[in-house]
Amino acid sequence: MVKVSVVGASSFAGGEIVRLLLNHEEAELALLVGGTHENQKIQEVFPYLKGFIDQSIVKLDIERLAEESDLAFLILPHGQAMEVAEAMFRAGKKVIDMGAAFRFRNAQIYEVWYKEEHLYHGLAQDAVYGLPEIHREKLRKAAIVGNPGCYPTASILALYPLLQEKWSVSDSLIIDAKSGVSGAGRTPGPGNIFAECNESVKAYNIGKHRHTPEIEQELSQIAKEPLLINFTPHLIPMTRGILATAYVRLQPWVAGREVWQLYQRYYEKEYFVKVHPEGVYPQTKWAAGTNFCHIGLAYDDRTHRVIVTSAIDNLGKGAAGQAIQNLNLMFDLPENMGLKILPQCP
Amino acid sequence: MVKVSVVGASSFAGGEIVRLLLNHEEAELALLVGGTHENQKIQEVFPYLKGFIDQSIVKLDIERLAEESDLAFLILPHGQAMEVAEAMFRAGKKVIDMGAAFRFRNAQIYEVWYKEEHLYHGLAQDAVYGLPEIHREKLRKAAIVGNPGCYPTASILALYPLLQEKWSVSDSLIIDAKSGVSGAGRTPGPGNIFAECNESVKAYNIGKHRHTPEIEQELSQIAKEPLLINFTPHLIPMTRGILATAYVRLQPWVAGREVWQLYQRYYEKEYFVKVHPEGVYPQTKWAAGTNFCHIGLAYDDRTHRVIVTSAIDNLGKGAAGQAIQNLNLMFDLPENMGLKILPQCP
Amino acid sequence: MVKVSVVGASSFAGGEIVRLLLNHEEAELALLVGGTHENQKIQEVFPYLKGFIDQSIVKLDIERLAEESDLAFLILPHGQAMEVAEAMFRAGKKVIDMGAAFRFRNAQIYEVWYKEEHLYHGLAQDAVYGLPEIHREKLRKAAIVGNPGCYPTASILALYPLLQEKWSVSDSLIIDAKSGVSGAGRTPGPGNIFAECNESVKAYNIGKHRHTPEIEQELSQIAKEPLLINFTPHLIPMTRGILATAYVRLQPWVAGREVWQLYQRYYEKEYFVKVHPEGVYPQTKWAAGTNFCHIGLAYDDRTHRVIVTSAIDNLGKGAAGQAIQNLNLMFDLPENMGLKILPQCP
Amino acid sequence: MVKVSVVGASSFAGGEIVRLLLNHEEAELALLVGGTHENQKIQEVFPYLKGFIDQSIVKLDIERLAEESDLAFLILPHGQAMEVAEAMFRAGKKVIDMGAAFRFRNAQIYEVWYKEEHLYHGLAQDAVYGLPEIHREKLRKAAIVGNPGCYPTASILALYPLLQEKWSVSDSLIIDAKSGVSGAGRTPGPGNIFAECNESVKAYNIGKHRHTPEIEQELSQIAKEPLLINFTPHLIPMTRGILATAYVRLQPWVAGREVWQLYQRYYEKEYFVKVHPEGVYPQTKWAAGTNFCHIGLAYDDRTHRVIVTSAIDNLGKGAAGQAIQNLNLMFDLPENMGLKILPQCP
Repeated sequence: MVKVSVVGASSFAGGEIVRLLLNHEEAELALLVGGTHENQKIQEVFPYLKGFIDQSIVKLDIERLAEESDLAFLILPHGQAMEVAEAMFRAGKKVIDMGAAFRFRNAQIYEVWYKEEHLYHGLAQDAVYGLPEIHREKLRKAAIVGNPGCYPTASILALYPLLQEKWSVSDSLIIDAKSGVSGAGRTPGPGNIFAECNESVKAYNIGKHRHTPEIEQELSQIAKEPLLINFTPHLIPMTRGILATAYVRLQPWVAGREVWQLYQRYYEKEYFVKVHPEGVYPQTKWAAGTNFCHIGLAYDDRTHRVIVTSAIDNLGKGAAGQAIQNLNLMFDLPENMGLKILPQCP
Repeated sequence: MVKVSVVGASSFAGGEIVRLLLNHEEAELALLVGGTHENQKIQEVFPYLKGFIDQSIVKLDIERLAEESDLAFLILPHGQAMEVAEAMFRAGKKVIDMGAAFRFRNAQIYEVWYKEEHLYHGLAQDAVYGLPEIHREKLRKAAIVGNPGCYPTASILALYPLLQEKWSVSDSLIIDAKSGVSGAGRTPGPGNIFAECNESVKAYNIGKHRHTPEIEQELSQIAKEPLLINFTPHLIPMTRGILATAYVRLQPWVAGREVWQLYQRYYEKEYFVKVHPEGVYPQTKWAAGTNFCHIGLAYDDRTHRVIVTSAIDNLGKGAAGQAIQNLNLMFDLPENMGLKILPQCP
Repeated sequence: MVKVSVVGASSFAGGEIVRLLLNHEEAELALLVGGTHENQKIQEVFPYLKGFIDQSIVKLDIERLAEESDLAFLILPHGQAMEVAEAMFRAGKKVIDMGAAFRFRNAQIYEVWYKEEHLYHGLAQDAVYGLPEIHREKLRKAAIVGNPGCYPTASILALYPLLQEKWSVSDSLIIDAKSGVSGAGRTPGPGNIFAECNESVKAYNIGKHRHTPEIEQELSQIAKEPLLINFTPHLIPMTRGILATAYVRLQPWVAGREVWQLYQRYYEKEYFVKVHPEGVYPQTKWAAGTNFCHIGLAYDDRTHRVIVTSAIDNLGKGAAGQAIQNLNLMFDLPENMGLKILPQCP
Repeated sequence: MVKVSVVGASSFAGGEIVRLLLNHEEAELALLVGGTHENQKIQEVFPYLKGFIDQSIVKLDIERLAEESDLAFLILPHGQAMEVAEAMFRAGKKVIDMGAAFRFRNAQIYEVWYKEEHLYHGLAQDAVYGLPEIHREKLRKAAIVGNPGCYPTASILALYPLLQEKWSVSDSLIIDAKSGVSGAGRTPGPGNIFAECNESVKAYNIGKHRHTPEIEQELSQIAKEPLLINFTPHLIPMTRGILATAYVRLQPWVAGREVWQLYQRYYEKEYFVKVHPEGVYPQTKWAAGTNFCHIGLAYDDRTHRVIVTSAIDNLGKGAAGQAIQNLNLMFDLPENMGLKILPQCP
């Protein structure tokens, strides 16, 4: 049994990791660490856990954490995450960081977009971006994994085959994404209260969202050329789910009708990516509570553009689910262990 | 492996039964029978099933059904359900009917409230009401089970201990229930379209809802006296979930402060019923996607009334989950097999 | 033109009062006072006001307030509201307090339920409870009005005719109420964030909600006997609206079938109360954005109970709309001035 | 007083037109015509109208309609709308058609996209596209107005200044739009039931939506060159509102920072279009229940693209509100008569 701890257990992502771990055959919960609910039982924070787990939330003690865990999931402010990751690394333990601190190979990109110094440029460089469909082999040996953001997960999987094949016109990439409100986290604020979000939709942080460089890092690497994208996130009145709608102009020599085959081929061996046939456009609900990514495709011959829609659960494949998938890879377990969950639909 | 068929597979309840069966270690899907999507693959009806199941929906053929299934779940118009149940019974097979046809021991009550003749009074009398917490032993040997309505499940579990102990004043029972819209089924109609339900709440069928006699049958049997209740259902803007708020005046000699202990005692061995401590009131989301029933209690010493709130998923413990629980009992399997699911929360 | 100020303009109730005043022919906005958005334009706080109003929010200065306003609406912490109301009163100006400080004739009840000293028992005694359908004549001459809570407005209007006629059994009153989340205010907290409220329903503060004594004060006065009620509030996933479902056992000598006539008779001259015929149950959406209260009735002859459902907009008749209605009465304007608004439906 | 009739009064758009007309000083309701609720009072179809209007719905009788109305709003199947419009035209009366039959100057475009013959190519050619901000002068003299679709209204207003100035690269136009479910109409179907739409988002009809040619007709005319766009509609879980997010690459010689000024200049005299400053992105709720269009702008200097978001109420500026605005123009009334409504927010 792999001993795993969750640091930041009372967050939404933390709660979801706990939920998935309780369903995992080869992982056992070591420590539940929290800032805000210390010494409280996790089932008091999340009463739906009553009967499933009796553990209490403890204060962060890095030494104990390193001692009692093979791996820690970190849901922490970035600076703190760096410290804990570094300490775990020194102790020979593994870390999956749910924040942005280890998502960039070049820590300077982090520093520009997050306006914060990165304390461990070297660790950042050696960390692996936790998107198994792209970096599977590296993840098997990773010590520190930067678990991808929710928007980047949906966006990168939507564009991977087209860019890898160099079918796309480089400066044509636009990603228009729609997220449920749980993406804004569990800390109450004007942006995530019910009365402000319900019965409404808006764009936010246009051109400035910090998931932009994360998407660009990965897409550039896939396309083997530096790429800039337009990324526009929207907040919509639902709890879970992200839909990314990606627009790509094809190279003149590409036959647009072949995109379905291309995506089928790329993803046919991927358990968690499901490519739908022409005319079927996924809805986020199909992924609710799961680690799946549903992809739909359209080709517009009038404009020679492909439109890809990609639907995930922002707390699933966009956070906790993907983290478990990474855990499985890092400890040589079947990649879908604990993740063979059907969505709750409707 | 028990061979089970789902008749009415393209309904919400049918889809949920399929979802749960795909997660069940000892049941295998025999036939998926449907009226509306014949010869279509179930994964075309419910595209989120892609990759999990490749079966097609077939037309109802009672002989084949009886031949190929040990048990059939029926989601059918009442008259048709009676016919299929009778045929299965004759063939020595088992049936869990998701409709109302076999919920009443006295078929005349069915005829009065449903304004429809009952074709098999004898079968109705021998059928078992599928609420395991009340009728567990009978269910183990049942051939035909009338799976309870969603409102009755929440309501009866909310009141069972108080009535069994005769702590309640008989004519004081009021149940005010709130349901999500999936309870109205998958057939589109003015009552379940989004624009009419969203951002609104209303009561409906006050004093006339057909779940009333079902609740009264069970509560009267528990209390060993004929009881009449006031039952008011409400439609609220969410997909899943029922919250029943029950009001009971206590007998003068009862100490109201003892209700928590009473409920703990009654339900401590029930895997699917969770009694929360004072001050904790369950929300329906805690049961989402599961077969659990969460119960909260309040005692008002000013009026000597107990207020019980009971939260379930109307498609879970209120329909498909409970049906699987009954299946397990009927085939001597562990009662929670396939149902150890944590809720998707938030 | 009546000069009115709004103290607490950046709250939901404040914003709604501003919206209604901008539509009012005989009232002009004097000061917009706020704690949190001082010197900011109100159209920056509520960008949908752009083009309608250019005023800025100012800091509270009681002298200036009294000087420049004929009346002030107060949305303030209770202690502060008392101070401002007293100062306005001394200056000969009028106040409509949106909080609880002046809702109780007997300030001791306030002190018990709100666990806070009341600074002006005399003012509390002379203040008028701002429910025009009950206290119209007193309101015409009032200096300080305690604007009713949202739940009490729906509850009292639901029960008024039955209690005034003494048709009800005194100890039988139960009110089960359902509220949208805007009732929890604009200050972010764990209780009003989207992800916690959406797709869920729960009861809260059972038997302890501070609107209970307010309802009891008014109902007792109507019935001319001290009454205790059971009041259970619920939070449901919508922004606006309250539905109160009231249960009343009738006196044996009352003919239940006459309740429709009774309610029609009581409310036929009330512009803002609409009694619906048998079988029609109001939904909260019918009142959205308005000052209307829609009432539906059911009589259950099996239990001799009447069930009344009453639907309002918690920010309309439950707060800002009713405040404008009170303003109109206090300044001898047509009672529905500025309030002839049709609901936004769907 | 202008005598206006509503043909199709029991639809959502019809109900909204009625709501707005009841608030209109210079229009009076002549006939309410319906297919489905004949002889029923409109207040039975929309009970929230109780007390505001006592009229009954009558069967369509074209002669009577022409006789008793100066103008008719048509919410009808396209073929029927053509017939009624032609008859009204012959009788010298005016028509605002809420459907697509008169939105295209070239009826062949209608025939291609709607796969239906157009019966009156000549009338179509002379009809005016009812977007006052673009066609104001023609609308003053129009006999038949094709009231714009909801998506086109938001999209065209979003792009008008950029295209009129020829600042945009012609083949770069992408519109990603998000609509509430009321846009799917009041007829129940699998696509608009609550349980299918709630807690989910999806794209639909990508590249094939019939509002595409309508947007292209207008944008091409504005830009004075034939344009093709990519238009992707999405369904999101709210009742009202459309947000269009438009992506435009600027010509190399354009200074992107000047777009705010450009839009301010274009729309400063437009009562119904509100351009917000940098960093403010409109949400649909700001337009709820109104005829306003809120526009936000972003310029991304990395890609030299402008992103415009435009928020309307699909039943307001996207349908009924705009229809009233057109009515006002056609009868020389102040353009905002009956439309000075503030949104219900939150």
